[in-house]
Amino acid sequence: MKYPNSIKKNYQNPLTYKNRGMDLEDELNLSNEYYLEIDKALIFKKPTPIGISKVTYNNKGKIIEKAYFKEPSTLDYNGLYRGKYIEYEAKVTKNKTSFPLQNIHNHQIEHIKKILIHQGIVFLIIKINEHVYLLKGEDFINYLNNSIRKSIPFDFIKNKGYLIKYGFNPPLDYLKIVDKIYFKEDK
Amino acid sequence: MKYPNSIKKNYQNPLTYKNRGMDLEDELNLSNEYYLEIDKALIFKKPTPIGISKVTYNNKGKIIEKAYFKEPSTLDYNGLYRGKYIEYEAKVTKNKTSFPLQNIHNHQIEHIKKILIHQGIVFLIIKINEHVYLLKGEDFINYLNNSIRKSIPFDFIKNKGYLIKYGFNPPLDYLKIVDKIYFKEDK
Repeated sequence: MKYPNSIKKNYQNPLTYKNRGMDLEDELNLSNEYYLEIDKALIFKKPTPIGISKVTYNNKGKIIEKAYFKEPSTLDYNGLYRGKYIEYEAKVTKNKTSFPLQNIHNHQIEHIKKILIHQGIVFLIIKINEHVYLLKGEDFINYLNNSIRKSIPFDFIKNKGYLIKYGFNPPLDYLKIVDKIYFKEDK
Repeated sequence: MKYPNSIKKNYQNPLTYKNRGMDLEDELNLSNEYYLEIDKALIFKKPTPIGISKVTYNNKGKIIEKAYFKEPSTLDYNGLYRGKYIEYEAKVTKNKTSFPLQNIHNHQIEHIKKILIHQGIVFLIIKINEHVYLLKGEDFINYLNNSIRKSIPFDFIKNKGYLIKYGFNPPLDYLKIVDKIYFKEDK
């Protein structure tokens, strides 16, 4: 699916925009805004961790004049759904046959294991071959424990993961999959 | 309790540092590091939300050359404890008789209400008169609904809140209070 850039530029109101030309992050942000709007879940993208090295002041307040991006040690999104803690990372690969593991830092892998120990819900959302899959943290860790490969084959993701279908609003209704696999509901 | 600034400057290793001259944020960060270390909980301070207006590149990667602090719409800390979602805000007031409500933004109040609806654990940690109290989100919202004052009297915090005692490590063992009031344990 390719759409002209002009559509992306016209992006104004997230809740009426028709899910075209967006990247995965936009799609998830809009889905989370929708969930917030209808009081379904409280899930936010964490701010990118930043190290600040220089701050000055002007009449509007503090201004950051030098800063750098830090490597994240947790996952992109976290929040609260049906009383449960939920955290996930979203990744896109242009690779068609596998998902390269260099996309996930070692600290993040350790963090996924800890969330599982503390009984949270944790997963990856992977966009590969123009399809979006939810891969449970448990299945991801199992794969790492049983493989020496530096990538996850597409077939593994297709078989173990759950396809998240595109819709109008929310663009990616991933909580439908969460209901099914974590709350054992099949609506 | 007042300690010379020189002690603060000597701060090196968080886990051996003796809890002196620290501010509330340091005390909570060290407590959360301790909880992480002993595998008790996964609770992190969220990065301050920042709007980036200018980025350049050098040989080390991206450098932020202009950015500003955004107003937070959620609370400072969130995470996972005993399978439950937990979120809280930490505030210090120098005021001795009351906690000024301007310390908490309207967006944050709305967010606290939503966490309660979605069955998360939410509270404020307030340092007032050199003591630290945990005030449950429920009690905070009740106070707002039943008062037109622009501050919470110290007596209300003392009566409705729970005193968090200072210790060596963790400096502020607030999860002991969480166990008691949310998990009905009295150890």
